[in-house]
Amino acid sequence: MRIETTIQGVHAALAPARAARKSIAFIPTMGNLHAGHLRLVQEARNRADVVVVSIFVNPTQFGVGEDFEAYPRTLEADSQLLFEAECDILFAPAVAQMYASLPQYTSVQVNEIANDLCGKNRPGHFTGVATVVTKLFNIVQPRMAFFGEKDFQQLAVIRHLARDLCFPIEVVGVPTVRAADGLALSSRNGYLNELERRQAPALYATLQTISAALLAGQRDYAALEQHATEHLNGLGFVTDYVAIRTPWLALSDNTTTEWVVLAAAKLGKTRLIDNISVRLPLDVNSSASQPVNA
Amino acid sequence: MRIETTIQGVHAALAPARAARKSIAFIPTMGNLHAGHLRLVQEARNRADVVVVSIFVNPTQFGVGEDFEAYPRTLEADSQLLFEAECDILFAPAVAQMYASLPQYTSVQVNEIANDLCGKNRPGHFTGVATVVTKLFNIVQPRMAFFGEKDFQQLAVIRHLARDLCFPIEVVGVPTVRAADGLALSSRNGYLNELERRQAPALYATLQTISAALLAGQRDYAALEQHATEHLNGLGFVTDYVAIRTPWLALSDNTTTEWVVLAAAKLGKTRLIDNISVRLPLDVNSSASQPVNA
Repeated sequence: MRIETTIQGVHAALAPARAARKSIAFIPTMGNLHAGHLRLVQEARNRADVVVVSIFVNPTQFGVGEDFEAYPRTLEADSQLLFEAECDILFAPAVAQMYASLPQYTSVQVNEIANDLCGKNRPGHFTGVATVVTKLFNIVQPRMAFFGEKDFQQLAVIRHLARDLCFPIEVVGVPTVRAADGLALSSRNGYLNELERRQAPALYATLQTISAALLAGQRDYAALEQHATEHLNGLGFVTDYVAIRTPWLALSDNTTTEWVVLAAAKLGKTRLIDNISVRLPLDVNSSASQPVNA
Repeated sequence: MRIETTIQGVHAALAPARAARKSIAFIPTMGNLHAGHLRLVQEARNRADVVVVSIFVNPTQFGVGEDFEAYPRTLEADSQLLFEAECDILFAPAVAQMYASLPQYTSVQVNEIANDLCGKNRPGHFTGVATVVTKLFNIVQPRMAFFGEKDFQQLAVIRHLARDLCFPIEVVGVPTVRAADGLALSSRNGYLNELERRQAPALYATLQTISAALLAGQRDYAALEQHATEHLNGLGFVTDYVAIRTPWLALSDNTTTEWVVLAAAKLGKTRLIDNISVRLPLDVNSSASQPVNA
């Protein structure tokens, strides 16, 4: 595995693969890798000739008072994991490499989607994500890019961005990896104390309850969201939102047959997010899998 | 010359060149081609293996009340000119091809630069330009892209965009082509009536006067701008701005040794823009050509 810290280094490392028309897969991360990330690497490894992973804790997607400084940086352990996962190139730039030209005037905005859900509580977050991913896409120029479904809104932002801006890149969502008790793996789980860690799986359990209700035919989305919010708050969460949406994050209506149920809630000082995909059993001629705004 | 109207068609047309690692040059235009555009093609032809020109009158860069509907569309004549200029691929998509997925949530904003000068009178214009150029860059994936210096602010927006977003594309500015009397060639010159056409060269003549004053050592930028504005208004122009800037469109100060003087003014119903680059003769060890915000 090559480790590159500069944009030019990445270009040089990829030049032979590009000349040989090999397929390049890309996985942007903020490091502190866990089994969820490694599943992305595995999917990429299965599908492409060359696997590139970036580790970059991007300052522009952290808001004031968020955990940019505290965010865990574990490059040595991450490198070892990526080496074992047969990653070909690790791109680990410093902030000055990614934001070399200052001031930077350019930002990529994914309106509507970015200001919804987590975006309401994290203004500017998804613009920071969209802008840095655009930069990374242009640096790596992959044929496909892999993102975890755990950060479902981020995945939706990237899907919209790639489609709207005509990136010749397939955006692949990879299912969330969970602990045995259901908690979605996340670097931020490390912030939980012992008691919080025991309470945390209730978030996913609540989403599963909504999933069962949808499959049973319930369609009063507002009531389901409200009930789940009260349930979580009763367990000690401070719930930001529970939202029943389409896979492109549009509002659900009576014709929806495929949903994503998303939730964000604080447990102590730690903000947890999770989601579950729900799909009615396929009918003949169903067009349920079409995004509503395609 | 191949004419393609779809994104997939462009990809297919360029696949052999890409496989052969040929250099691809790209010139985005809105058509109604004149000698200024053909000079861009000529420069591209001199420097690259494959020349791609796009013709697309982009609705998102026209404001309410601007001339989107009236903008001259002359595809047949344009195709003939491009064929003669040895363009390899003409990409002429319909609006529905470039904005296939609706709603489009994603926009590329180049703040500061985009809201300045022409951006003040044309809100959203440069965001429309930046977004469509990003799309076209991703469709064509050229090694270099050519833009006329005539639209200097547009060129600056694209330079910032390409640098900030890490596009692996060299942005090349090509000098303005002028009529014998000095008027910069522009599709919008066709809107001028006979009298206005005779008055129009005064715009460039005024810029030349400022150039001479700068070279003679005058540095009271505000006074030079004010005087030029009054002069143009006295000749029947309605002047939007005269601005003495650096090549990256930063404000000039006493240390500036390289300027761009930009002007926008209406003559009757036609809005004309022009600019002139001014550079002090090079001293030994001069760093005048460094952009101030590099």
